[in-house]
Amino acid sequence: MAAEPTVPQAPATAREWHLAARPRGWPVPADFALVEAPVRTPGPGEVLVRNTRLSVDPYMRGRMNDVKSYIPPFRLGEAMDGGAVGYVVASGDEGFAPGDAVLHGLGWREYATVPAKHAVKVPRIEGVPLSAYLGVLGMPGLTAYAGLLAVGALKEGDRVFVSGAAGAVGSIVGQIARLKGASLVVGSAGSAEKVARLTGEYGFDAAFNYKDGPVGEQLAKAAPEGIDLYFDNVGGEHLEAAISALGVHGRAVLCGAIAQYNDTSAAPGPRNLAMAIGKRLRLEGVLVGDHDALRPQFLAEVGGWLKDGKLRFEETVVDGFENTPQAFLDLLRGGNTGKMVVRLDG
Amino acid sequence: MAAEPTVPQAPATAREWHLAARPRGWPVPADFALVEAPVRTPGPGEVLVRNTRLSVDPYMRGRMNDVKSYIPPFRLGEAMDGGAVGYVVASGDEGFAPGDAVLHGLGWREYATVPAKHAVKVPRIEGVPLSAYLGVLGMPGLTAYAGLLAVGALKEGDRVFVSGAAGAVGSIVGQIARLKGASLVVGSAGSAEKVARLTGEYGFDAAFNYKDGPVGEQLAKAAPEGIDLYFDNVGGEHLEAAISALGVHGRAVLCGAIAQYNDTSAAPGPRNLAMAIGKRLRLEGVLVGDHDALRPQFLAEVGGWLKDGKLRFEETVVDGFENTPQAFLDLLRGGNTGKMVVRLDG
Repeated sequence: MAAEPTVPQAPATAREWHLAARPRGWPVPADFALVEAPVRTPGPGEVLVRNTRLSVDPYMRGRMNDVKSYIPPFRLGEAMDGGAVGYVVASGDEGFAPGDAVLHGLGWREYATVPAKHAVKVPRIEGVPLSAYLGVLGMPGLTAYAGLLAVGALKEGDRVFVSGAAGAVGSIVGQIARLKGASLVVGSAGSAEKVARLTGEYGFDAAFNYKDGPVGEQLAKAAPEGIDLYFDNVGGEHLEAAISALGVHGRAVLCGAIAQYNDTSAAPGPRNLAMAIGKRLRLEGVLVGDHDALRPQFLAEVGGWLKDGKLRFEETVVDGFENTPQAFLDLLRGGNTGKMVVRLDG
Repeated sequence: MAAEPTVPQAPATAREWHLAARPRGWPVPADFALVEAPVRTPGPGEVLVRNTRLSVDPYMRGRMNDVKSYIPPFRLGEAMDGGAVGYVVASGDEGFAPGDAVLHGLGWREYATVPAKHAVKVPRIEGVPLSAYLGVLGMPGLTAYAGLLAVGALKEGDRVFVSGAAGAVGSIVGQIARLKGASLVVGSAGSAEKVARLTGEYGFDAAFNYKDGPVGEQLAKAAPEGIDLYFDNVGGEHLEAAISALGVHGRAVLCGAIAQYNDTSAAPGPRNLAMAIGKRLRLEGVLVGDHDALRPQFLAEVGGWLKDGKLRFEETVVDGFENTPQAFLDLLRGGNTGKMVVRLDG
């Protein structure tokens, strides 16, 4: 018997963030508009979710541009979307009941009426917050896992370099590389504090602040005999340095290019790309959506590491729904360590 | 019983080309020196070969620079090397007898004393000249075959774009793509005559002269729905245009970057490389040396196509050993159609 749709705890209206204008270059607060909208009672096959944590992610910057891509752009004057976790408050689908913890894709709002088929009930792991499903157990975690193992074909003994290594994806990449037998794990980040965390908390062998000097020189010091695998979250100078450092049959996993997301004209690509011929490098893009088949294996393996305390993750938590755009802007400037999330329930 | 080393038809001295100076930018004739040197009687395990055809290839430009690469640089003041075919005139190895047709790596000279283990006796195919082993049945042919099939993972129905398509590698790539079921084969070349040959002789569906206008625009006309596989012999603007044209999960085989070989400063890489993320492109370098295991299959399949008249190849023949450097310089400027060879025996 399907549950009767009811809205026990939901208010009549709630807030959501709209894209008010398409940013040129770096986004600014005026590109976003806070809107009060009716909370819609779920129809059959829908659930109403009270969001408790929202995800802000670098890929969202691309969706603010009106260009064809792997994912449609945000529409002007409508609520944006993105990863979110929360609790079902009313269900029109027999698979869900009030109180269920769910992960879904209608973030940037306080309450979301979600098609049940697009909501996932998530098991709780002791000591692991629900928001982990936005990070280490969610999209960034699977991106790291699939990028490193399926696309990058990590082998035991590989020397691995990760850029954006203190971020939600990078911090997991480095740790998985270590757990899977990499012989050297090097990371770059944008502050001394992050660099200390890479070698301290996350067990990287070496790390450097890319703002301290040329990436190529710093990488050569950290990995004097070169690298076998580069996980790129950054693009630009980092990618060029990695291409020089990669050895024969080296692999570069192209996951992000945050250094370029706010460029208004196209930045030159790596000047040394022709090295890929002589060294038979492989550069390959990764998108998490291609790797759903890996999810059960990923949840089992990464969930196990979390339970056993072998894998650490961090969150940078911004409090208050009204601060969601600011959290996103901070993320683009590297204001986070680990996963950037917005906390809605105080 | 090993044959007695004898030198029945060899002169006491013969000519060889030395690298006299390392070119800066485009090579010039003064970078090469013609030297008369003794012809050395083969010792045990060696054969003396009278070269009849010499190969000049774009990769040789890289060997003129004093930089670490997949193959050591040419040494100043010594005979250069490269692919050559000819006939054994004296043998110190029981596996070879005078008159044997061989392929070996000591080109740029009239007579070569070659370690027997570095010489290959080659079977003659009716109607196919010995020099085919420098081209369609040799290094360029195997490069095309392995690059397209092993690295590029060509699938039936793929839309394929080849740059430098009238060259020794490119002309074979396009034809193999067609024979293996590509649904569209597009090539670029640097003259109207070459373009006509691509669609006429070689059966490309479309071709354009890259000097006639922006590569991206011409490619979009030739392949309005995009491409699945790009075989890059050129680099530069071609690679950037191909990255834009490639569809999801497209592949770029990086084989050459002749547009950049004579640059004295590093040219910017493709400005759109970050598209590789969203489209999950794979860019991968190919070097023929990695693919020796494919050689028997390659010789059988390509040899069969040649016998059956299904695959065409051309040579641009430059007459006279003294013109070897000029043949090489012409090659760098696109003066060849198909394989560029130097004929020594008139």
